[in-house]
Order: sequence, then C-alpha cells, then structure tokens
Amino acid sequence: MNTFGRNFRLTTFGESHGAAVGGVIDGMPPRVKVDMDRVQAELTRRRPGQGALTSGRKEEDIVRILSGISSDGLTLGTPIGFIIENKDARSEDYENLRHVFRPSHADYTYFARYGIRDHRGGGRASARETACRVVGGAFARQVLEARGIRVMAFTRRIGRVEMPDSVDVSPGLVELSAVRCPETVTSEKMVRLIESVRADGDSVGGIAECRISGVAAGVGDPVFGKLDAALAAAMMGIPAAKGVEFGMGFDGCCRLGSETVDEFGSGFRTLSNNSGGIQGGISNGADIVFRVAFKPVATLMRTLRAATDCGGVEELKARGRHDPCVLPRAVPVVEAMAAMTVLDAVMEI
Amino acid sequence: MNTFGRNFRLTTFGESHGAAVGGVIDGMPPRVKVDMDRVQAELTRRRPGQGALTSGRKEEDIVRILSGISSDGLTLGTPIGFIIENKDARSEDYENLRHVFRPSHADYTYFARYGIRDHRGGGRASARETACRVVGGAFARQVLEARGIRVMAFTRRIGRVEMPDSVDVSPGLVELSAVRCPETVTSEKMVRLIESVRADGDSVGGIAECRISGVAAGVGDPVFGKLDAALAAAMMGIPAAKGVEFGMGFDGCCRLGSETVDEFGSGFRTLSNNSGGIQGGISNGADIVFRVAFKPVATLMRTLRAATDCGGVEELKARGRHDPCVLPRAVPVVEAMAAMTVLDAVMEI
Amino acid sequence: MNTFGRNFRLTTFGESHGAAVGGVIDGMPPRVKVDMDRVQAELTRRRPGQGALTSGRKEEDIVRILSGISSDGLTLGTPIGFIIENKDARSEDYENLRHVFRPSHADYTYFARYGIRDHRGGGRASARETACRVVGGAFARQVLEARGIRVMAFTRRIGRVEMPDSVDVSPGLVELSAVRCPETVTSEKMVRLIESVRADGDSVGGIAECRISGVAAGVGDPVFGKLDAALAAAMMGIPAAKGVEFGMGFDGCCRLGSETVDEFGSGFRTLSNNSGGIQGGISNGADIVFRVAFKPVATLMRTLRAATDCGGVEELKARGRHDPCVLPRAVPVVEAMAAMTVLDAVMEI
Amino acid sequence: MNTFGRNFRLTTFGESHGAAVGGVIDGMPPRVKVDMDRVQAELTRRRPGQGALTSGRKEEDIVRILSGISSDGLTLGTPIGFIIENKDARSEDYENLRHVFRPSHADYTYFARYGIRDHRGGGRASARETACRVVGGAFARQVLEARGIRVMAFTRRIGRVEMPDSVDVSPGLVELSAVRCPETVTSEKMVRLIESVRADGDSVGGIAECRISGVAAGVGDPVFGKLDAALAAAMMGIPAAKGVEFGMGFDGCCRLGSETVDEFGSGFRTLSNNSGGIQGGISNGADIVFRVAFKPVATLMRTLRAATDCGGVEELKARGRHDPCVLPRAVPVVEAMAAMTVLDAVMEI
Repeated sequence: MNTFGRNFRLTTFGESHGAAVGGVIDGMPPRVKVDMDRVQAELTRRRPGQGALTSGRKEEDIVRILSGISSDGLTLGTPIGFIIENKDARSEDYENLRHVFRPSHADYTYFARYGIRDHRGGGRASARETACRVVGGAFARQVLEARGIRVMAFTRRIGRVEMPDSVDVSPGLVELSAVRCPETVTSEKMVRLIESVRADGDSVGGIAECRISGVAAGVGDPVFGKLDAALAAAMMGIPAAKGVEFGMGFDGCCRLGSETVDEFGSGFRTLSNNSGGIQGGISNGADIVFRVAFKPVATLMRTLRAATDCGGVEELKARGRHDPCVLPRAVPVVEAMAAMTVLDAVMEI
Repeated sequence: MNTFGRNFRLTTFGESHGAAVGGVIDGMPPRVKVDMDRVQAELTRRRPGQGALTSGRKEEDIVRILSGISSDGLTLGTPIGFIIENKDARSEDYENLRHVFRPSHADYTYFARYGIRDHRGGGRASARETACRVVGGAFARQVLEARGIRVMAFTRRIGRVEMPDSVDVSPGLVELSAVRCPETVTSEKMVRLIESVRADGDSVGGIAECRISGVAAGVGDPVFGKLDAALAAAMMGIPAAKGVEFGMGFDGCCRLGSETVDEFGSGFRTLSNNSGGIQGGISNGADIVFRVAFKPVATLMRTLRAATDCGGVEELKARGRHDPCVLPRAVPVVEAMAAMTVLDAVMEI
Repeated sequence: MNTFGRNFRLTTFGESHGAAVGGVIDGMPPRVKVDMDRVQAELTRRRPGQGALTSGRKEEDIVRILSGISSDGLTLGTPIGFIIENKDARSEDYENLRHVFRPSHADYTYFARYGIRDHRGGGRASARETACRVVGGAFARQVLEARGIRVMAFTRRIGRVEMPDSVDVSPGLVELSAVRCPETVTSEKMVRLIESVRADGDSVGGIAECRISGVAAGVGDPVFGKLDAALAAAMMGIPAAKGVEFGMGFDGCCRLGSETVDEFGSGFRTLSNNSGGIQGGISNGADIVFRVAFKPVATLMRTLRAATDCGGVEELKARGRHDPCVLPRAVPVVEAMAAMTVLDAVMEI
Repeated sequence: MNTFGRNFRLTTFGESHGAAVGGVIDGMPPRVKVDMDRVQAELTRRRPGQGALTSGRKEEDIVRILSGISSDGLTLGTPIGFIIENKDARSEDYENLRHVFRPSHADYTYFARYGIRDHRGGGRASARETACRVVGGAFARQVLEARGIRVMAFTRRIGRVEMPDSVDVSPGLVELSAVRCPETVTSEKMVRLIESVRADGDSVGGIAECRISGVAAGVGDPVFGKLDAALAAAMMGIPAAKGVEFGMGFDGCCRLGSETVDEFGSGFRTLSNNSGGIQGGISNGADIVFRVAFKPVATLMRTLRAATDCGGVEELKARGRHDPCVLPRAVPVVEAMAAMTVLDAVMEI
C-alpha cells in the first residue's frame, strides 16, 4: 500500500527519524530530458525550516537519483530510484512518547494496525514522507508540461481568513507569499493569524485549491476509475486532509439544477465551470478545479490528554518542532499528488 | 476500470438500455449463509418508480444469481455472477440525443474518451449501473454484520433544508421517510422542496451522511491505502457526487487545533470524534462518519443549450423519466459502496 | 483472483453444474466491429460432445452478450458482460462424490482452501470454466488480427506420438484433424492412441505448441512483467498444464551457447529463432513459439484410491463423462489465453 | 512492472553500471525479528567474483537497510527500503556497444521497447538486478521458516551432465558444491564441463530444481491465481530462464493417467507426488517440486554477428566479465523468487 498509481507509479519508503526516506518511480516515460534542478527546487519548496511559520527542523532535502537516467540526462524507461537522507532528526525529543499515544495523531492507530510503531517524529506517519511524493510529482509535472498541462495549487483559506473569489492567481504570486496565498492582503492576514495562533501554542487549519489547465476532454475512466475519484483518493492520502470537493462542491450541491448546470457554447466549451472540469468521471476540457480541507495539526504546545499504551490517560505537553499550520507546505504536496494522478490518467488512454 | 476493491472485488457491466446490467463479486468469504431476501430488499430500496419523488421508470430489479452459492445457500469462495435484466427501457425517448450531448451529463466526455457512446438513457454512465453496486454491497454488509459492523446512511440536507445535528438516527427512521431523512419535520420539508422543484422543471442537490459503527481500531493502510482515501474514492465514484468530508470536515478545517483535537479518555476511547473515526488513514475505534455532496441532476424539464456532435449548440428540452433529486436513491448506494470499502479494508488485515 | 490481465481484463464466474458460466471483458478497445459469428465459432471449437474423442456432455455453448456493444455491432469501450447457460449437467453422476475427494483432482485442495466445495462435475475447477476464456480470447484475437498478429496452436505430441519438426503448420490443417494435429499421419496415430487408451479406461497427456506471428519488436515489460513470464502464467492457469517452455526450451538449455545463440542478420532479423521470439522478456520481432505440457486427465474408468472427507481412503470408480485426452480441446484454450496475454502486452505500450 | 507480488511486494530499481541497485519491500509482516546477517549471507551467495566459474566482477554487495526496521531489529510493518551500491562497474568495457546490439541479449529489445537503453553491462537487463530479488527473498524466507516452510533449490543438470534421481538433497550439500549440485560426483563433472566450455570461449545451460516443504494444503488461488502459475511467472522472470515444469512435468505429460495419478493414502496424503504438490492451482500438502531451464548465456568469447543500431550487421567479439554458466548463481535467485511467491500466496489466505 506504499505504491501510488497504475501507469505512473510511485513507491515510497522511510520513517521520519530513520536513515533516509526515498522511493521508486516506475512507469516514467523514456527519453524525457529531466530538469533535475527543478526537481530539487520542488523539494526545496516543501522542506521545513523555511521561516517562522514552519517547523524548525533543518533538512537540506537533497535528492539523490540512483537509477533510470542516462549519462546525458534522459530517462531510460526503467525505474528511477532515489533517496533523501534524514539529517536533522532529534529523536530524543520523542523519548517521552515511547509508551504514549498523542491525541489526534496516528500513534495509536499504527499501533492498533501493526502492534508496533516507530514513536520518533511520527515514524512513517510523519509528513516527512511527503518529500518523496514531491519528487514523484516533480517528474510527473515535467511530462505534463511537455503536453501543455499545468498544475497549480494555492492556499485559499486559513482559519476564518479566506481569499476573495475574484482574485487572479498565478504560480509567481503564490510563491511570493509566505503562506502560498496569491492575494497580498489576504496573505498578510494569514501570516498574522498563524503567528498569533503559534504564540498561543495552538494551530489552525485551512483550505487549499488546485487548478489544472490544459487537460483535453476525454481523460479519466468511468465507473470505478473516475478522474475525480482518483484525485479525491490522492488528496485524502495527504496527511491532515479531511475533505475534498470539486467545482462548486458542497455549496453547489445545496443549489438548484438551473443554477449549476454547465450549458454548452460552441466547440464543446461550457459557458460555466460549476462541474470543475469533470463530467461522469471524465475531463470535459475545462480547467479541473478542486479544494482540499486540511485540519489544524494536532500538536499543540499545550497540555492534552494522551493515551498510554496500557490504555490509561496521561497529561502530555508536546515537544519537538512542528508547523502551526500545514497549508503553506501542503500546497506543493497537493500539486505533486495532482500531477501524478493526472499523468496516470493521461497515460491510461 | 470496472472493478472495485482489492480483496472484496466487484466487477460490473451493463448499459441503461442494454439487455441487462450485472456483475461478478470476487473474494466473497466462503461458507457464509447469504440471506438472498435481504440482497433483493436492498436492491428494491434503490429501484426507481417508487413514488412521486423518483423517476417513473418501472424496473422490478430482480437479481438472478448464477454462481458461487451452494445448493444449501452457502458461499463457495468462488465468484458470484449475477444479472439484473433491463425491462422498462424506453429508448425512443432518447432518439433525439443520437447527435446531441446534454449539458452537465457525461454524454460529451464519454464520446471524447471513446469516440462512441450509447446515447440511450445515459448508457454506461446511467445511475442504473449502481444497482450492481447495491448487490455487491448487500453481500458485503452481511459479512460485516456478522463481525458487528453496521453501515447506515441518510439524507442530511436537500437544497437549503438541513437536518438538525442533535437528531437521533436509526435505519428504521430513515426508511420511514420518503427522502431517507430520519427527522420527521425536516423530511416533510424536503419532500415539499422536491415537489416544488419538480413542478418548476428544476432539480436540487443535497448532502448524505454515512455512519459506520463497530469497526475496531487498526483498519486501513497508511500512506496510499488510507481508509478515508478509499472511502473518498468510493463515494466520488457514485454518479453526481461532488465532494466528501470526514468528521468535522471543511468546517473543522477552518478552526483551531484546540477546538478540534480528539483527546483520549480511558481504554483508547476519544472524548470527541472530530476526526470521524480515522487517524492517519487507520480507524481508531470510534464511529466512522463522513458526508457526501451530490449535485442537482442536470436533466431539467427546461430548454438548455446542448452541444451537437459537430461542435455546434442546440436548444434541447429533456424527455425521459428522471429523478428531481438523487438523494433518496443515493443513500442505499452510499451504504453499498461504504460496506464494500470497509470489508475490503477489514480483509486486508 | 478470477480476473486475468491488466489492460485487457477478463473476469469469469461459474461452476460446471451451476446455472451458467460467464464473464466480463473490460478494456476492450472501443469502435471495433466484432464478428459475433467468429466468437461463437471459437466457442464451438472448444465445446464437448464433438465426437468419440471427447466428453459426451452435450452443451450447445451459446454465448449471450449482455452489454458493451452498440446496436450496430461496435464495441463501446464499456465492459462486455456475457453468459453461457449450463444445460446438460447431470449432477446425479456426482452424488457419490459428496464426501469423497478424487485423486489428482482439485476436490481436496479446494476443500482445504475454502472449507467447502461444489462436488458436482468439478465445480469451479472444471474445464467448463475455460469456455469463458475462449470468449475473451475470441474478442482479443479480433483486435490482434486487425493489427496483423495471428495466434495459432496445435497438438504437437500425445503420449509417445510426436509430430515431426519439419511439418508445415496452418490453421486449416489443424482444424481438419480430430486431435488438432496438422500432420495427417501423426494425427491418425494420435486418434488411434486415444481410442485405445479410452478402451482401456485410461487417459493420456501430451504437448501443445503455440506460434504467434506479427508481433513487432518491443512488446513486453522487463523484470517482473516479461512477456514470456506472462505467457507462462497464462498457460499454467489452464487446467492440467504442468509445464511451459519457450523456443528451444528444456532441450536448448542442455546445449552450448554456440549452438543456441541467435545471431543477427540485417534489419534486426535473427538468423535463427532458438529464443522463441523473446529476449529479456520483450519480443524481438521473430515468431513467438512455446509449448505447453498437459498431464493425462486423472479421471480413469478404473478403481482408484480416493480420500474421504474424514481423511480415510475409499475405492472409487469414476462415473460421469470425461475426455480421455485434453489436448484437442485444450488447443483453443491455449490460443485464447495467448491472444489475451499478447493483446494485454500490446496495450501496455 | 518493476513490482513483484500482491501481498508481499518487492519493487526494484537499478542498472548494472548505475550508482546503485535497490528496492522496497512492502507488505513485510510487522514484529518479525529479522536476522540481517542471514540476509547479507544470501546476498553473498549470489554475488559474482566467487571463483573460476563465475564473472570476475568484484562486488561486495553489502545491503544497506534504510527504513522499516525498529532500533531493536523488529519489522515495523512499514516498507523496507534498501540499496546495494555498484562499486566495480567497468563501463569502458562496454564502450563498443554504444551503437551495437549483442545477439541473444536484451540490447535490441530494450531499444525497441523504449527507444533508448543503457548499453553498459546490460543496463537494467543485467542479472545484477537479481541481487535485489535475493534481498526480498531473504526477508520472505525468514517469515516462511517461522511457519515451517523451507525453500531449497539446486543445480540438477548442466549441459548433458545430470544428477541421478535417487540422490538425497540438503542445503548443506548444495553449498559444498561450487556449482550448487548436491551430488559430489556429478558436481565434479559439472565443474569440469564449465571449465572446458569456458576455455573454449563458449557457455552452457542447465536445469535447476526447487523443492518447497512445509506448505499446508490449501495455499494458492484457483483459475487465474494458481500457485503453479505464479511460480511459473516468477521463474520465467529470472534472466535466461526458458522453461518451467512441475512434478513429472513434460515427461509425465507423455504418459498415461494410470502411470501418473497420485492416489490417496490416509490423512489426505498422496502415495506419490507426480503432481509436484499442486492440484488445481492449490497446494495439496505434499512437497512442491519444479524445475527451471536456463539457457546458455549468450556472451561468448567468440566473434558473433551483432546488429548495429542502423539495422546493419557487425562482427562482435565480447569483452567484459561474464559467467560461462548461470546455474550456480541462479540457484539463490530461484530460491528467492520461490520464497516470495509462496509467502505471497500464504498471506492471501
């Protein structure tokens, strides 16, 4: 269950405080000139230690490619093995968790599933694992871009602070913002919210939006292989995700058909995009638009009731280094998962 | 892509106006005494022609089992083949759609995907296909119930009419309601809303909620096989679904960590269930709770701009028999998909 | 585990003495004009009751297609459901097997696997199931032929009677022979051998050969998806198969490299085909050649020591209708499995 | 296609002359105390440079485990990532192959498949990749042994030199032999044969036999998931394999049913084991026995007609370091693939 995808497949491994995380990309098309600097840049976008808003863990997150690329930088069609060493793990910060399960973390559920867990830094459940997804996504993205498909995500909402609908969105604007919100005023409000929440020892959740342009009509498989179902699974597989919605989403579902139907203009183009670019699980040529809700991280700098491994309750105060809000670092992961999902669907055809 | 599941697998076939729909259940545990009356009863819950609120198509929806069950009613561990004949298809109602793609339907996207489509009654994209899912779910549910796991869904919201949070919910109450909303007053409002919408030639969407009880902690697989990711894919695979959320969902994601963390009580029980019963993709022993948003059906009894297969635009007025709101009939499908997903995850362990 | 293939997928169901056998073909390319008479003809080639050399069971084996084909005979890209009714099952012939496991049959192993079995006519383990594979293969073959790929199998050896190497082989000659051996003199010897073996209440095994022409170089996947590995699995999945070999096979493996290396001529053509058309798991453009060994069927008209379901031993004399040699009817099944395997690999590229 | 298995999954990567080969083991049961010295010892059995009979390439083949194992040596249930660095690659030996395809190698077929290949040392098609399978097999074997299942392979035949049937076989005897043939006299003959073949610049093939004991009745899945079909695919996936046979195999298939039927004794034990321990694709409790034919390696120290990448023909004399006979080093790979296949089937139940 550590493999994602059917045609473009990423298999990942690694615990937060183990020797390394890494993975294998299988199904990468051959003869693609990969820009390794861009792969590394994607990884750097996600890495911790980037400022006051993220975890203080300092990881350089240098990806080392072990196979699958020829001496002149072309993919061979064979699997691409890669590793990212873990260099700044402070396992001593987690010593107190050896027999304790943190609330709203996966500590207890991993233990229930396997009868054992790595208690250091979240082990396999740590968001550190998503670094490998970003590598996979960076390869997928380069294939997609050569086909005119672009994937972009951004922070739409943090807590009660939400971006207006009317704003123009571009990757450049997103990267200017410390929280990856392309609208300056909202971005500043979000920064202040996170700072204030962190000062309180609290955390806050939010909503990311993803837009995929350039997907021709006819991508996706009906019934059990729907493109939106695949994207939903990809998004819900990101740590802290609690919901996904497409196009008008939950709000549109409380409306009338006459308010939400996407009538046709000429050339099979729709006059509106309430569907978010997918009908019957298959792309219709419009932009694919969806939103992902991320919960507030459960690591608070407060005393919380945790469980002991004997089933008792214990007061626990978190240590370690944590993000008060996952949104800024979740955005590149949303893009990576979306890129791999769409490439996988494109390769099915 | 017409197979669902990994351990408990349902493969379906069939177009809305073909000879039959049907499927194969593979991975059904052996030596289970299947109550075939209950399987048929589930199917009957979903079938059309049940009243003023649903499509007028009259299908008896009798399932015929062809294999996999011994003469004394026990499963053999071999695949269970089944068919449901299509008896009341009126293909002539769709003759005008031979060269026309309805807006916000899968007509155009199927054509873009395959270069051909069955224009009669939605073809493969018709919700008629979900009858097969209900059969699969009815088998899965009997296995789950023998293990103490119960799956129940209901209509939580239609248009702007929403059920209060505080209401007690039980399968009996759900089935008493024509719209499958367990709260009498809300149910009546919903009925009136649908009637008024239908009278207008319009349609309306809504939200279903699903609750699964009795799942022990430790069900689900981390990283890419998360139980919530699998449930999200299952739900988004239901026709008209546009969003899924777990536990506090989108709303909880706009709150603080201190408002949403599920602290532990004794015996590994959490004091709240904001997570909806899943942490890190694995069940934590609490009820699994999620909601699914269904869009208003796109078949309105009004003139809409459709596309011709040459890329032009044509005024189209719908004929045929349609549901003004899918929620009442979607509820058994949500349950079926949830039951198969959970059984699949349980069988993984 | 009742699904075969990754891109072109056949899922089958059905017991020998149940209501029907059948299946679902998923992944059939769209817009293919299927010749249904040829599908039926393939099925008829495999059916029992065709003469003194096969089982006396009389099955018409009429396939009924339920979905996936448009009214003008084109595939829709959607799954093709089909059933073949069981009409001449004589379950009373198997009443004595309710508590007895026949030697060298799957009676005991199914019971060990599932704790239950259908004792009538071999249940799911019956070769009757292969009728569904022939349907799948008949669809696959039509796709392959449109791409210039032809699959042909024949009986190469029965008991000690073996066809000379030098013989020209053609589908027409194969079908002229009651045992599907294209060489007249050998064919007559084989017929006499089977007759004599049947008269003795005995059975006899043999070897089928399959040749696939027209496969371009570059079909197949390295490492774990090799074309020869996939063909080997497909062949070993046929009832009674006990071995598979490619090109020079076992005999070539006892030789020197200098005797077996396939040197190149111009245009990437090899001067010999000791490899059987596959190098490193990928086709090299030469004919793909392999042989499959089928054991003598274990149903002898003699008294044999069987096991009772309590673990005792009982003398058992077979009843029912059986083939004294599976080769003649195995040939169409070899072709069907080969056709599906090759199409699956071709669709991967 | 670089992933093997369904429940116990090995994904491998790496070219012969790249930075490293490696892989990910997914599905390893949790809480298993892994003896890492034994894992390394298995790898050492396969490594080159072990004497006059194998390639002179000197690789230490030290496996580095990166994840999935707790600090006290227990498996976590999470994926086990590992790498083996390539240290003694001499790519200059292959410079002449940049535009030339060697006969009976995968050079041309990889190029036909991908339009590109790594010409150094066979690239991905090199047997070096099997080092990763041995690591996977070493983990699988430890799980199997804890359940009383033992997997052993040995060299049965090289060229015309074959071991007598009557010989007692044990892992200790196998490892005493430079060619992994447990019978001393035959082993010496094989050594001399390989030495003489090497002196001639030639190579020679042979047959390995594998025996698996301790598998209870009921392992394997009918129809398309047969245990023998899975083992056949696993074996045919080993470089140079050209055939597989079970129990009496090809020879038994040319006999009568009365000579080959495995009658029952008491306790469901069969009085003979002509079937090789599998009936209808499911184990019957007897030893599982099969043989794998390996062709003579195609790298001869002689001038052979190779193909240029323009489709011409060129005289080529091999350089590099090669095994004159793969059997000795294939034996641990056969065991590894068999162990993973059987564990996968056992975990299915």
